[in-house]
Amino acid sequence: MTEMNKQFLLASRPQGQVSTGNFRLVERPVPEIGEGEVLVRNHYLSLDPYMRGRMDDARSYAAPQKLDEVMQGGTVGEVVASRNPAFAVGDKVLAMFGWQLYGKSDGSLMMKLDTSRVPIQAYLGCVGMPGITGWYGLNKIIEPKAGETVVVSAASGAVGSVVGQLAKRKGCRVVGVAGGAEKCRAVTEEFGFDACVDYKAGKLRADLKAATPDGIDGYFENVGGEVLDAVLRRMNAFGRIAVCGLIAGYDGNPMPTHEFRSILTNRLKVQGFIVSEHMEFWPQARRELAQLVGDGALKYRETIAQGLESAPEAFIGLLKGRNFGKQLVKLI
Amino acid sequence: MTEMNKQFLLASRPQGQVSTGNFRLVERPVPEIGEGEVLVRNHYLSLDPYMRGRMDDARSYAAPQKLDEVMQGGTVGEVVASRNPAFAVGDKVLAMFGWQLYGKSDGSLMMKLDTSRVPIQAYLGCVGMPGITGWYGLNKIIEPKAGETVVVSAASGAVGSVVGQLAKRKGCRVVGVAGGAEKCRAVTEEFGFDACVDYKAGKLRADLKAATPDGIDGYFENVGGEVLDAVLRRMNAFGRIAVCGLIAGYDGNPMPTHEFRSILTNRLKVQGFIVSEHMEFWPQARRELAQLVGDGALKYRETIAQGLESAPEAFIGLLKGRNFGKQLVKLI
Repeated sequence: MTEMNKQFLLASRPQGQVSTGNFRLVERPVPEIGEGEVLVRNHYLSLDPYMRGRMDDARSYAAPQKLDEVMQGGTVGEVVASRNPAFAVGDKVLAMFGWQLYGKSDGSLMMKLDTSRVPIQAYLGCVGMPGITGWYGLNKIIEPKAGETVVVSAASGAVGSVVGQLAKRKGCRVVGVAGGAEKCRAVTEEFGFDACVDYKAGKLRADLKAATPDGIDGYFENVGGEVLDAVLRRMNAFGRIAVCGLIAGYDGNPMPTHEFRSILTNRLKVQGFIVSEHMEFWPQARRELAQLVGDGALKYRETIAQGLESAPEAFIGLLKGRNFGKQLVKLI
Repeated sequence: MTEMNKQFLLASRPQGQVSTGNFRLVERPVPEIGEGEVLVRNHYLSLDPYMRGRMDDARSYAAPQKLDEVMQGGTVGEVVASRNPAFAVGDKVLAMFGWQLYGKSDGSLMMKLDTSRVPIQAYLGCVGMPGITGWYGLNKIIEPKAGETVVVSAASGAVGSVVGQLAKRKGCRVVGVAGGAEKCRAVTEEFGFDACVDYKAGKLRADLKAATPDGIDGYFENVGGEVLDAVLRRMNAFGRIAVCGLIAGYDGNPMPTHEFRSILTNRLKVQGFIVSEHMEFWPQARRELAQLVGDGALKYRETIAQGLESAPEAFIGLLKGRNFGKQLVKLI
């Protein structure tokens, strides 16, 4: 009996909200490897908001995900066969094998992982792309100074929770914005933010004002929409906004910004960024984040869906904010 | 008969649009000067969009204009009495004496002007604050490279016309946005822009697309509203937007921005600025601009209202875009 690989392909592009019908599960034989190649059994798949953008056939920073091809995504796993001297069976690796159980590579775009102090799946979370995203936006765009106030939206998420903890270590007052009392409690109690505003509580502006008595100097933007407007009203002169995501508009909802004028009146710098365009900072960022995680000084939460089959529902939940912390799919 | 000074005071704050009733003309004796002081007869008053913001009692980059005090504003004039060794009768000076015929100073915040190659009123226009505003936003925020496309809104205005001509000298494709066929003709024929889009012609998006076949790399923003949205849709990756003014919203009109997402997808840098906070660049900018004007290499237009009494109507016209180029009030 030949062992089979399972894959999710993009079956159709979403009209508005993503549905499970946009994906198609297929079985294929586990690929055979040739000279110089490596076969990896994936242990975890990373689900990330950026995937929603790639499902559209729109001009964006990344090429669209192609129809009828394996959904793209970051993975960690273990080498199970190797004809490449750089990788041995048993090596733990980070790769971009996407929504499938097995991946084959010539060894390029794969990185060996040290899992002695850091759990393997953390390399998809706070020691991986999301964590480095937070590290970059905070350190290279917001550039906070001690005593300043930094606000982070999607504060309980894989990116936001890192941003807040790093800003706190720099001596900032750190305020999160998250959806629901439970997430807000974790933001302050687990991640150590000074305050958290529950945007679902219905008085976003007043609550944000109360939580930022000295205004806002830096904002790490994951959300857009009314949260962005509320923050723009509280920005101090020469504030910096790192635009990392605008998840509120990912389903094509109109999402007008009413407070653009604050950019002028407060002489703000607003900068969008994609962390994959700044690879020169990844080694430093990964080293710092791994050190903090190994020391227990950087907390993180994970939501783990079990089995590849659960990936579409888990992804839809992520887009609706149902996850808590890093959304992973466990593949073994 | 004592000679009288005439002044316009801010009588009331506008509710929405500015009206002539917001100003009050008063006559006062020409001030006497004490030891170290200088008396100046103003020749020209500068009218600028920033004055609208100061008429509101709102949190902004500058303190509000106080009620019942002389309207603030830049002036050029001639020293008519001096008890200050640094200034002689007959000296031409730049100052901030506001909406009045005479100004008195201890000599601080006054600058002597060389009018041998540059007309005195140009120090209020393309060799003054508006020109330096354009110089700063272009050189320090947009930082255009040869071959890039730079778009300028309010392109026929005192700031925009300078931005476009400087960008053209740097080897950029330069596209203006202006209101009406006459202004657009001047933007291309007098100021030498490669193209100009008439936003009043009713097909802003299509016209802007046609004028920017390679997208937009730099945008100098004076207007906001639908022009901003149309530009955001055309921005290239890593584009830069200098936010200098948002005149479309100055009267309190709601002015939502629908294309904020472009900041993320195109990794834009959007930066607001106020040129008075960057005085360290003024000497260099003024020197370069005066040289170009003296050489006849920098063109400008002026709209000159005659007599202090005409200032309120001229200012209202400026806010409605009725002026053409630098709006001045001739006081002699």
